[in-house]
Amino acid sequence: MRLRLNGKNMEENNSLNDMISPDWGSQMHLFASKMFPICRSLTGNGVRETLKIIKGLIPELKIHEVPTGTKVFDWEVPNEWNIRDAYILNSNGKKIVDFKKNNLHVMSYSTPINTEMDLEELNKHLYSRPDLPEAIPYVTSFYKKAWGFCISEVQRRSLKEGKYKVVIDSELAPGSLTYGEVILPGASKKEIFFSTYVCHPSMGNNEISGPTVTSFLAKYVKSLKNQKYTYRLIFIPETIGSITYLSKNLNHLKNQMVAGYNLSCVGDNRQFSFIPSRNGKELSDKIALHVLNNHVDSFVSYPFLESGSDERRYCSPGVDLPVSSVLRTRYGDYPEYHTSLDDLTVVTKEGLQGAFSIYSKIIRVLEKNENYKINTLCEPQLGKRGLYPSTSTGGKDIWCEVKNLINFISYADGQNDLVDIADILNVSAVELFQIIDELSKNDLLGIKQ
Amino acid sequence: MRLRLNGKNMEENNSLNDMISPDWGSQMHLFASKMFPICRSLTGNGVRETLKIIKGLIPELKIHEVPTGTKVFDWEVPNEWNIRDAYILNSNGKKIVDFKKNNLHVMSYSTPINTEMDLEELNKHLYSRPDLPEAIPYVTSFYKKAWGFCISEVQRRSLKEGKYKVVIDSELAPGSLTYGEVILPGASKKEIFFSTYVCHPSMGNNEISGPTVTSFLAKYVKSLKNQKYTYRLIFIPETIGSITYLSKNLNHLKNQMVAGYNLSCVGDNRQFSFIPSRNGKELSDKIALHVLNNHVDSFVSYPFLESGSDERRYCSPGVDLPVSSVLRTRYGDYPEYHTSLDDLTVVTKEGLQGAFSIYSKIIRVLEKNENYKINTLCEPQLGKRGLYPSTSTGGKDIWCEVKNLINFISYADGQNDLVDIADILNVSAVELFQIIDELSKNDLLGIKQ
Amino acid sequence: MRLRLNGKNMEENNSLNDMISPDWGSQMHLFASKMFPICRSLTGNGVRETLKIIKGLIPELKIHEVPTGTKVFDWEVPNEWNIRDAYILNSNGKKIVDFKKNNLHVMSYSTPINTEMDLEELNKHLYSRPDLPEAIPYVTSFYKKAWGFCISEVQRRSLKEGKYKVVIDSELAPGSLTYGEVILPGASKKEIFFSTYVCHPSMGNNEISGPTVTSFLAKYVKSLKNQKYTYRLIFIPETIGSITYLSKNLNHLKNQMVAGYNLSCVGDNRQFSFIPSRNGKELSDKIALHVLNNHVDSFVSYPFLESGSDERRYCSPGVDLPVSSVLRTRYGDYPEYHTSLDDLTVVTKEGLQGAFSIYSKIIRVLEKNENYKINTLCEPQLGKRGLYPSTSTGGKDIWCEVKNLINFISYADGQNDLVDIADILNVSAVELFQIIDELSKNDLLGIKQ
Repeated sequence: MRLRLNGKNMEENNSLNDMISPDWGSQMHLFASKMFPICRSLTGNGVRETLKIIKGLIPELKIHEVPTGTKVFDWEVPNEWNIRDAYILNSNGKKIVDFKKNNLHVMSYSTPINTEMDLEELNKHLYSRPDLPEAIPYVTSFYKKAWGFCISEVQRRSLKEGKYKVVIDSELAPGSLTYGEVILPGASKKEIFFSTYVCHPSMGNNEISGPTVTSFLAKYVKSLKNQKYTYRLIFIPETIGSITYLSKNLNHLKNQMVAGYNLSCVGDNRQFSFIPSRNGKELSDKIALHVLNNHVDSFVSYPFLESGSDERRYCSPGVDLPVSSVLRTRYGDYPEYHTSLDDLTVVTKEGLQGAFSIYSKIIRVLEKNENYKINTLCEPQLGKRGLYPSTSTGGKDIWCEVKNLINFISYADGQNDLVDIADILNVSAVELFQIIDELSKNDLLGIKQ
Repeated sequence: MRLRLNGKNMEENNSLNDMISPDWGSQMHLFASKMFPICRSLTGNGVRETLKIIKGLIPELKIHEVPTGTKVFDWEVPNEWNIRDAYILNSNGKKIVDFKKNNLHVMSYSTPINTEMDLEELNKHLYSRPDLPEAIPYVTSFYKKAWGFCISEVQRRSLKEGKYKVVIDSELAPGSLTYGEVILPGASKKEIFFSTYVCHPSMGNNEISGPTVTSFLAKYVKSLKNQKYTYRLIFIPETIGSITYLSKNLNHLKNQMVAGYNLSCVGDNRQFSFIPSRNGKELSDKIALHVLNNHVDSFVSYPFLESGSDERRYCSPGVDLPVSSVLRTRYGDYPEYHTSLDDLTVVTKEGLQGAFSIYSKIIRVLEKNENYKINTLCEPQLGKRGLYPSTSTGGKDIWCEVKNLINFISYADGQNDLVDIADILNVSAVELFQIIDELSKNDLLGIKQ
Repeated sequence: MRLRLNGKNMEENNSLNDMISPDWGSQMHLFASKMFPICRSLTGNGVRETLKIIKGLIPELKIHEVPTGTKVFDWEVPNEWNIRDAYILNSNGKKIVDFKKNNLHVMSYSTPINTEMDLEELNKHLYSRPDLPEAIPYVTSFYKKAWGFCISEVQRRSLKEGKYKVVIDSELAPGSLTYGEVILPGASKKEIFFSTYVCHPSMGNNEISGPTVTSFLAKYVKSLKNQKYTYRLIFIPETIGSITYLSKNLNHLKNQMVAGYNLSCVGDNRQFSFIPSRNGKELSDKIALHVLNNHVDSFVSYPFLESGSDERRYCSPGVDLPVSSVLRTRYGDYPEYHTSLDDLTVVTKEGLQGAFSIYSKIIRVLEKNENYKINTLCEPQLGKRGLYPSTSTGGKDIWCEVKNLINFISYADGQNDLVDIADILNVSAVELFQIIDELSKNDLLGIKQ
């Protein structure tokens, strides 16, 4: 039997060999649209409702509550914030701003208010974006007590002098910080880690794309047979959530985490982006870069200096976890960012599928990435095992056919891992899966521990 | 006495200081033409006849025989193949293909046959190259029993329907694998290694150039006085020969080899090429690259991935010998490769001399390559030893004259070897030989062991 | 309180935070003009007079005398040379060459002479520069007994046949080699080292600029409060002086020196230049390159191979001190070099100030360059300390304001020193001084020993 390097006819006995990621783009977009309308914040019932939807897809999800006031490193868990309604009535009693129409209208963590004021006073509490006159901006005041409304610049300019009634029916009181955690055990206790956030109200690329793709990665891991690694996937509020999670799990994560990724802005279909870990030399960096280099046409690579999400916390001094980030268009780098324009038209099924496809390849390469070592001293005789043509007819044709096999053997010295070898050979690690399987079947390949 | 840096007037007390490699181009071409006509293969009398000619030049050559069936790592020594005659007669009894006219006509390791067949059946055993219609291709079937004839595409197209008589008077039977070995002892047991192959029939660049240049390197080493290293030069069949040799000598080679080279395609005058060892960081790589960078106008540098000769075996995992390859035009990269067109017009005396010149410089640099260390703390006073001008007249003229000397001293710290220093100074190591000799004469230079 | 990153309003409680080097350009030029006229050589009263002027500015200067004949490594201290007068009279008794008008007229270390000779004989002792016909060249014969006069090529061509009276009233006799040394103790015994030379007669960029800037650096160090390091500044004759100094102080210097610089050619205003230490990886290299990269528009970087002053001795094998050199236009690279044209018009107050400014920044960065380590595990909460804006209004504006602070914290892991961090952040270390002070004030920053 000759080795068929194009992989078309290979025996499908190992789902890891599957070259095709499931095409779940439409399912993911539908799932995102269920979570999109909920009013999330750092804490409160919006987070709980979102997690309940995720648990519908991934029953393994466990929900954790951490009480207000809990000390978490240099921080503490804040009061829980919940909101029932909020609006502004003009002097004619007309509801000109309505939280129920768009939850971005209320500044997140606004304290309750119910009063009348004139336009001058109201204006001190209004936020708009002159540079994006149609957009409702996303504004927060998590750690300083304040209230505010966010409206479009167009609407703001139309406001007339007069009395306004302002109502925010919110509550800021001791409660808890809520997060979700999925653990999918593998043969090894060593872990692959995915973190995403569930703390922004109705926004698309910079919110709901993250929990959507992360949920479907959990579903994908469950579809693997006999996976090597344990997978840990968490759904947390950004910043305070990762600090809280780290304060409870740091030792475990430092001992077990092999590679991790922070998922944010994984929903639009405009570009791919990469943010390395702080030192840029972790396994998470190596695998992500290898997959991006081999499987997308181009991507934007940022220095860690430009990172702005939870990878900051995971990579902070003393924490030092191997966490990188593959994104579509990064926070801050697309016009709709942090406004009502970042909706489910920015997030597309192709965008979600693209991110999922890269992350699922990262998983498959991580699972297969060993320090392989050829069992024979000197080259094995491939011909007698049907892995090499028996007649040399003089040209360079044989070479093209077998060069990946021959070169894989040359570098399978127990020092190089699969990705090292693939990089030396200038092919995707995925293209070497079949060679590994054939050599293993012939007892020619071992794994150096 | 002032140091004369151009080396023209220096005392010729050390043959290593000779800047000129012997001009043996014509002698080498003549020697190649004696070996060219012999029908060599992996085993058999063709190899023995070739080695006998080499022994005529280098009486130190020892001939070894390894019996058929001997286990050599994952392989075993095959049957010995010998051939007396082979031809095809057409229906008129005319000999249209004749082994005696060109030994490439028979597929190497063809089993014996003596029968008649029609054209359709014969065609299954004929090999030709439509892309090179005038050339007889070189075809082998070493490890699968088969027979075949190789003819030009032009002749093949002229063949008419009818009966053909096909005769191959060959023998494939237990015997032995034959190789030659020259060991030239030096002051140290540490060895420089050269390997070349003697297993192709009548071809030039990709066969007879290798044993030719290797033989003359043995002659060159014998001409050196008091060489430091022991030299080991072997003449083997490719692949199975190197595997056999390694299986018998691996421990010794791993302990003693300082640098080695595989000589193949060292006969045409079209370009220079370089293939590094597998890790690219061996002394053999460093010295060869230094010499090529300083002594040829340009060369093609291939990655190890593109290697296809015995350097593969010498560098395979677990073998890990420091073996590189300097070539003229590499196998597969010239049009005549593996056909009857690769003859003694492709191999020229300039081509052979060019390869010899580089390898002889490699030998001289290896012999002189030490970690030199200046004996004084701080700079030595060169003026009182006549090595520095006594009057400073203000310009930059002195500097140009002494800068290699001064800079050599600055970097002769026992950490850098000669080639490191030459690379820092951006000169050929050869240009520093005289400085080393002058400083040594003045007791200013030691060698760090 | 918000961190004001532009530094305009910061509390001035630490002179190291001063962004402005004192503007001492005019003072330095005046100081240079006092030392310029003295006839210096390797030894003799010219060196002593020069050191006396420096002691006027820096009373801490100690003057050392090392007797003729003292063995210093491979060298020995030469006879002391003093000269009272020298001239040439033509046959009319007219003084055509007069040492008192320009001390370059006499070859340094000329033996005494008082005789008559004709032009042919005289010509053997005359030095001029046909390429610079107006210039009196600078010529020496330190280690071979000889005498000579240096005149312009224009004058030489005008000399007529006839008798000439030649007088050199000099003395070459046992005495001593003189050098000066300033030690300014700091909190630590670890030292920063500056070396400059006082051995050329009346020349500007390649002589008097060095002791001038070095003297004012001593004055600058004295103006610092509580400096960390001890500062050692030496004023020596070139080559034999550094060899002598090393032979007496090598062990101490090897144990205590953290970084050192050789000051030469620091007076013209044409360019900046840099010569690294021999290995190019010392702290002195790192700090100098960081300051040059961030504070001058461009500079010429030479390899150590091109160095020609005392950095050669400080970096020689076995000495291996961390000594680099920041220069203005390097010796040999400007047309007036080693001639009477290198005078106090070549050296300008802007030229001196530019060199002083770079060296004073080097001092400040060295003083502040620690391995900082953030005290909290995970990110500190900056908001509660007034170091972070409390309301996020959705754009990228906050990021620009706080990114240096945030990124400094991310890399303050005890592994990176200040300059490492500044290089990662692509800012000058000087710009991070205020951040360090603010974090320290808030007990958020420690120093990893």
